[in-house]
Amino acid sequence: MNDILRQTADFLLSHDNFDILTHAYPDGDTLGSGFALCLALRQKGKNARVITTNIPNDFTFLQENITEQSFETETVVSVDVADEKLLGSNREKYEGRIDLCIDHHMTNKIDAPLRCVDGAAAANCEILFELFKLMDIEITRDIANNLYTGISTDTGCFRYTNTTSATLRAAADILDIGCDSAYINKVMFETKTRKKLALEREVYDTMEFCFDDRCAIIAVTLDIQKRIGVGDGELEGLASIPRQIEGVQIGITMREKEPGVFKVSVRADENVVNAAQFCAGFGGGGHAAAAGCSVKGSLQEAKQQLKDAVKEVL
Amino acid sequence: MNDILRQTADFLLSHDNFDILTHAYPDGDTLGSGFALCLALRQKGKNARVITTNIPNDFTFLQENITEQSFETETVVSVDVADEKLLGSNREKYEGRIDLCIDHHMTNKIDAPLRCVDGAAAANCEILFELFKLMDIEITRDIANNLYTGISTDTGCFRYTNTTSATLRAAADILDIGCDSAYINKVMFETKTRKKLALEREVYDTMEFCFDDRCAIIAVTLDIQKRIGVGDGELEGLASIPRQIEGVQIGITMREKEPGVFKVSVRADENVVNAAQFCAGFGGGGHAAAAGCSVKGSLQEAKQQLKDAVKEVL
Repeated sequence: MNDILRQTADFLLSHDNFDILTHAYPDGDTLGSGFALCLALRQKGKNARVITTNIPNDFTFLQENITEQSFETETVVSVDVADEKLLGSNREKYEGRIDLCIDHHMTNKIDAPLRCVDGAAAANCEILFELFKLMDIEITRDIANNLYTGISTDTGCFRYTNTTSATLRAAADILDIGCDSAYINKVMFETKTRKKLALEREVYDTMEFCFDDRCAIIAVTLDIQKRIGVGDGELEGLASIPRQIEGVQIGITMREKEPGVFKVSVRADENVVNAAQFCAGFGGGGHAAAAGCSVKGSLQEAKQQLKDAVKEVL
Repeated sequence: MNDILRQTADFLLSHDNFDILTHAYPDGDTLGSGFALCLALRQKGKNARVITTNIPNDFTFLQENITEQSFETETVVSVDVADEKLLGSNREKYEGRIDLCIDHHMTNKIDAPLRCVDGAAAANCEILFELFKLMDIEITRDIANNLYTGISTDTGCFRYTNTTSATLRAAADILDIGCDSAYINKVMFETKTRKKLALEREVYDTMEFCFDDRCAIIAVTLDIQKRIGVGDGELEGLASIPRQIEGVQIGITMREKEPGVFKVSVRADENVVNAAQFCAGFGGGGHAAAAGCSVKGSLQEAKQQLKDAVKEVL
């Protein structure tokens, strides 16, 4: 991994005019990676911008000090993107054009000339922190906030099984440099809007247990979303609910994106079920403990497809 | 602090036959501290036992490899106990008899001959980890599990504002030594019993907002506890619910212990309200962001007393 990191640092230092790609339905790690890399490259006198799709409200503070830049794209880097399919509305423009992919998904499928992929890193921002050391980047407060957001959100604030001692030490170093961890933790992990509270109560009512209570499924229909008036921001974090119930080995959260299309988040006890493999069966992907996919059909049809697949793996 | 740690290490190494006191309604930090210290002292060939009151189910694994020992008490050490009042049913026996108090509560009031109190430590187990280095203790898996449990539970798994880079580095070192962090995190932070799920739904219904929604209060009456059939174990963690609601600066959780007696947990935005000071007004104590006390009266009377006090501080 050290050789690859060195090569990646050299690549970044010797190129310019960067488009940095993040994945669709962006989370803290892809956005934190994107903005941190953008700030680092600009510190080195380069042009760089982050290509995103709708950024949830909670994350808008990450790009506070990033001004617009106009330039002709020369170099395309993807961060925390496991597959070009996950580029969403930016896919068409950038497919086949990625020069460097920096990612921590073992299942990464991007066929870029330079690939910096470390499946052992809990967050992509952990890889960037190492890269920045090699690139001699001064970790400013803005960079630190982005890195901390990526690392903390992808580890559930250090509670998921992907957390290693390296993760904790990276976070410790970032705290020492100075970052707004109290604010970030509060916003990411300790704040529930009134709407989210209402949403949770509704969602609890949809919870269905099956296969001897080893599987739990919740569904957030468009009807519920409309009734409570919640957007993407409030829907984050629901995915962890079913898996948290005692005895549940696979927790499934179905979120209706448009009539008849469900975005499905799967959280699994990786000793029993591999969530990434499970989701791959529906054209999705992710990690062993947390993955996602899309399923089409009515609520009942989509749920039945998922249950059939659960039956196979439990 | 280094001198005190050295003195404390010397004290422990030069004494024997230890009773280690934990606080009533024990949490992960007092129990983790107690059992870790007990194991460390036994490693040095000493007699030691932990004096506890009802240990919640989730924590029983911590004492798995601690056998009973019978000896005449010579030395009394308290761990994570801010005040002798908090010894509960053990108060009468040990009041005035504490030789050494090891604690991380700034508000510590124990008048022991030797006091090892560090208010900067996020968890008491963080202090013990430093002490064990000075005492040349081999950190076994059992000791590591106890220390990790204390550190992780007292910081909400590294998300509360008390978490420092030192906390994260101590946890990283403990992970490297080898501890069952995945199991501990799962049990402490990622598991909800079906009963707890039911309880949360009931408790959400009791939520009352006041003072422009800057204060939220929930109440777990004996009636609710009886109806759902929950014990102390399931009631842990409720205290964080009201404070999590967006805009809430002081979150109060009232838990009826016996008819007309409420154990009150207060969580506050420490920039606005000092929870320890707030609770001191009711004879309680704790930290700036998290503290506790008892209030007597009917639900309405007790709640009114609390609201009157909130009015004073907001």
